Amino acid sequence: MNFLEERILKDGIVKEGNVLKVDSFLNHQMDIDLFNQIGEEFKKRFEGKKIDKILTIEASGIGIACIVAQHFHVPVVFAKKAKSINLEGEMYVAEVESFTHKTKNQVIVAQKFLNEGEHVLLIDDFLANGCALQGLIQLVNQAGAEVEGIGIVIEKGFQTGGRVIRNMGYQLESLAIVESMDSEKNEIHFREQ
Amino acid sequence: MNFLEERILKDGIVKEGNVLKVDSFLNHQMDIDLFNQIGEEFKKRFEGKKIDKILTIEASGIGIACIVAQHFHVPVVFAKKAKSINLEGEMYVAEVESFTHKTKNQVIVAQKFLNEGEHVLLIDDFLANGCALQGLIQLVNQAGAEVEGIGIVIEKGFQTGGRVIRNMGYQLESLAIVESMDSEKNEIHFREQ
Repeated sequence: MNFLEERILKDGIVKEGNVLKVDSFLNHQMDIDLFNQIGEEFKKRFEGKKIDKILTIEASGIGIACIVAQHFHVPVVFAKKAKSINLEGEMYVAEVESFTHKTKNQVIVAQKFLNEGEHVLLIDDFLANGCALQGLIQLVNQAGAEVEGIGIVIEKGFQTGGRVIRNMGYQLESLAIVESMDSEKNEIHFREQ
Repeated sequence: MNFLEERILKDGIVKEGNVLKVDSFLNHQMDIDLFNQIGEEFKKRFEGKKIDKILTIEASGIGIACIVAQHFHVPVVFAKKAKSINLEGEMYVAEVESFTHKTKNQVIVAQKFLNEGEHVLLIDDFLANGCALQGLIQLVNQAGAEVEGIGIVIEKGFQTGGRVIRNMGYQLESLAIVESMDSEKNEIHFREQ
């Protein structure tokens, strides 16, 4: 069991409906020392890959991406989830449909911050059905840049997102993959990696 | 002129309507080395203050707050701008009215992440009229915690937010205070500090 799985067992809370709450250290309150361990681990897993830039999505991906970026010495760009008045000029826009809510959302990045030929590492906190991630991949493709790898903190292995992404040949590294959860016993089972 | 003012002059773009675009290094693409310089500077300016926690607000405050937190060795909590399904349990909610848009917004944080007696440093990227900041102060007060200081990257000195906050006795440190801007000449004048 790795450092992250141990932390999830210690501080994660399983709620009904396959909800895993990790808001005490990952996506509301943020443990920066843990984020640095996450950064070190991604650095190892993407050893030897050329990374020019990290792309993430607001809001909870941003903090992790910024700390991880220190281990790669690259800038971070975060995609926005809806059109903002501060984002003027040419933009790449990906439309993605939410599996859960059946709503359509836009994922947006300014064109000047994603360039043809750039090697991009995608970082996010959670992967479940993967709608946000699909939007990020679409943005990178629109730019003619290349997805060099995908680093996820927690993957819900019982949902489809991870399998789809791996089936398409991307190097997807999830530091913890939850295979099943039991809210009554507050039990979490991880996939052996 | 400090490192940040120099960077703003180099890469900032002045747009009509007193808009300062710094999205190439601060709030869309993020220069992590610059964020570390910002962290060092805040550490100096709040020297000797007891800081238990950094509180910021989504989305563009998060990255800066996480890097700054490394210089204070404290966790970061980010307030959310609208009620989210992932935020269950008891919450502090501040209602703030936008100066610009006349709309009412909620700023929300889980009660368990802001505790009575904690010394809190508020961090954000921009201060103009200060609605977001007023919401954060209100949350800290609701918790019975204490605002130990406020660190802002760029303050628009020609708007009212900074004066109001200083008038109330808070130690507000803005690394660059823009006194005036001219979009035709792309000129920016900073307040001497």
